[in-house]
Amino acid sequence: MNTNVINTSELYLGIDGGGSKCRAVLVSAGNEQIIGRGLAGPANPFNNYEQTISSIIDAAKAALIDANLSTDLLSQLYVGVGLAGVNLPKLLIKMQQWKHPFNMMHVTTDLQIACLGAHDGKDGAILISGTGSCGFSALNDTINMVGAHGFPHGDKGSGAWLGLEVVKKVLLSVDCIEPPSLMTNLLFSHLDCQDELDLVEVVAKQSSSFFAKLAFIAFEGAKHQDPLALSIIKEGALYISDVARRLWLDNPPRMSLIGGLSPQLTPWLDKDVQERLSAPIHPPEMGAVIYAKQQLITI
Amino acid sequence: MNTNVINTSELYLGIDGGGSKCRAVLVSAGNEQIIGRGLAGPANPFNNYEQTISSIIDAAKAALIDANLSTDLLSQLYVGVGLAGVNLPKLLIKMQQWKHPFNMMHVTTDLQIACLGAHDGKDGAILISGTGSCGFSALNDTINMVGAHGFPHGDKGSGAWLGLEVVKKVLLSVDCIEPPSLMTNLLFSHLDCQDELDLVEVVAKQSSSFFAKLAFIAFEGAKHQDPLALSIIKEGALYISDVARRLWLDNPPRMSLIGGLSPQLTPWLDKDVQERLSAPIHPPEMGAVIYAKQQLITI
Repeated sequence: MNTNVINTSELYLGIDGGGSKCRAVLVSAGNEQIIGRGLAGPANPFNNYEQTISSIIDAAKAALIDANLSTDLLSQLYVGVGLAGVNLPKLLIKMQQWKHPFNMMHVTTDLQIACLGAHDGKDGAILISGTGSCGFSALNDTINMVGAHGFPHGDKGSGAWLGLEVVKKVLLSVDCIEPPSLMTNLLFSHLDCQDELDLVEVVAKQSSSFFAKLAFIAFEGAKHQDPLALSIIKEGALYISDVARRLWLDNPPRMSLIGGLSPQLTPWLDKDVQERLSAPIHPPEMGAVIYAKQQLITI
Repeated sequence: MNTNVINTSELYLGIDGGGSKCRAVLVSAGNEQIIGRGLAGPANPFNNYEQTISSIIDAAKAALIDANLSTDLLSQLYVGVGLAGVNLPKLLIKMQQWKHPFNMMHVTTDLQIACLGAHDGKDGAILISGTGSCGFSALNDTINMVGAHGFPHGDKGSGAWLGLEVVKKVLLSVDCIEPPSLMTNLLFSHLDCQDELDLVEVVAKQSSSFFAKLAFIAFEGAKHQDPLALSIIKEGALYISDVARRLWLDNPPRMSLIGGLSPQLTPWLDKDVQERLSAPIHPPEMGAVIYAKQQLITI
């Protein structure tokens, strides 16, 4: 990717770590351009600390290689890392105590880097609907968080929540407690199930990411005006709208909806919320670069 | 327990196996009386097959000992076993292939023995609300089942479902998405949590039995007219009422509500359902004895 001469004495790396993958972006301080990108495995310290630190190193090396630079330069990188789970103090401390191979490393939540990225380092708020869901704002150095409670007790309006609601409604429909639904055939055929017993066996003890992959069935049903699908989508979207209105109380200058479900979910949000949303300026991994730079300035 | 002379050539043992314990009851054919009871650990073949068969043997031995009889008599027992999970054909076959130490053993679902027990071996229907929930009827050798789908995708109106809804509503309330609730303090103090972060950590990845232990908070809140608690109880009770009405379509001569939540839940069921419920005649383990006897007659 890199064709210019790079000042390797000042390289920033941004890391966006999550439950399924870890993204890295390498930026040269001089021209502020992305000179390399890297991708590695899961990086969620709540699930697996060892895997998290190895994914971070793998993604960092991949970004250096992508920039035609030596992996020896790891030791010169100024690194910003955003991770799920580090809102729990003990996980943040554990990550901070890591004897990392970088020049400097600053760790914060996946939410904060997403917010910094979406608003180019300025104050603002974000709504997230991906596998999980939440609201987050950073205003005058004050952080506000709504949701982000996890699955199945929280994460309303997220992919995992929508997928679980699809399974619940389909089971009620098959039992004639709820009316027939278009979603039944979609779900049975997607999971290759012949009957209710198959379905119950397939969904037993599955994780949030399994259910998130079923969210499309709610949107598909809603597109065809299926009442059960509409009730799911409307309840999930109302929650995200409610979270948005909670965050507006603090008057953030800007708000973005991000996460894998944002394109499908946006049209279902209340109009007043839709009108006040702006597209995110950068992805979360660039927010991690911004975070690293801000920490250097603070020092 | 036994003070009379027992005809040890015809002893029936009923087993009610579940996710937390396994109950046994020993009955002499002559006078139809319970002469011993036994209790052992979990017996759910879906979770753990080896543990299930060892719990069954332990409970059987305990019942013989309780009756002042030798455990050598295991080999003479006519045994009826009711287990969760054996509605899945592969688990039923696995249990039937077990080289058990008894004279004869007949395995069926926990639902069927509960229904046989509730109606003294005659046709009827049952509603269950314990850790899980479901409806079941046996009429003219035809079985009908509603629900019994598992947690968290099914088991509406059960203890696990109620407890999960309590956690969901409290988290929404703490986030000011829902109004304040009496349940918040009850839940925080019951789980010894200081704040939302503690709560999220405590409830993460917990099983259905953990959530079932929180169901009392919904009933406690509803008793004091807490709107969020009332909405949970009413939704759960409506589901159980709907299941009852589904089962009434087949005109069962008798219907009972059983399971740990039945005393608390009954007053919340729709009046038409409450009026048609009868108290169960025997507990499920006696239903297992009845099942064993019926199988012998069939042979």
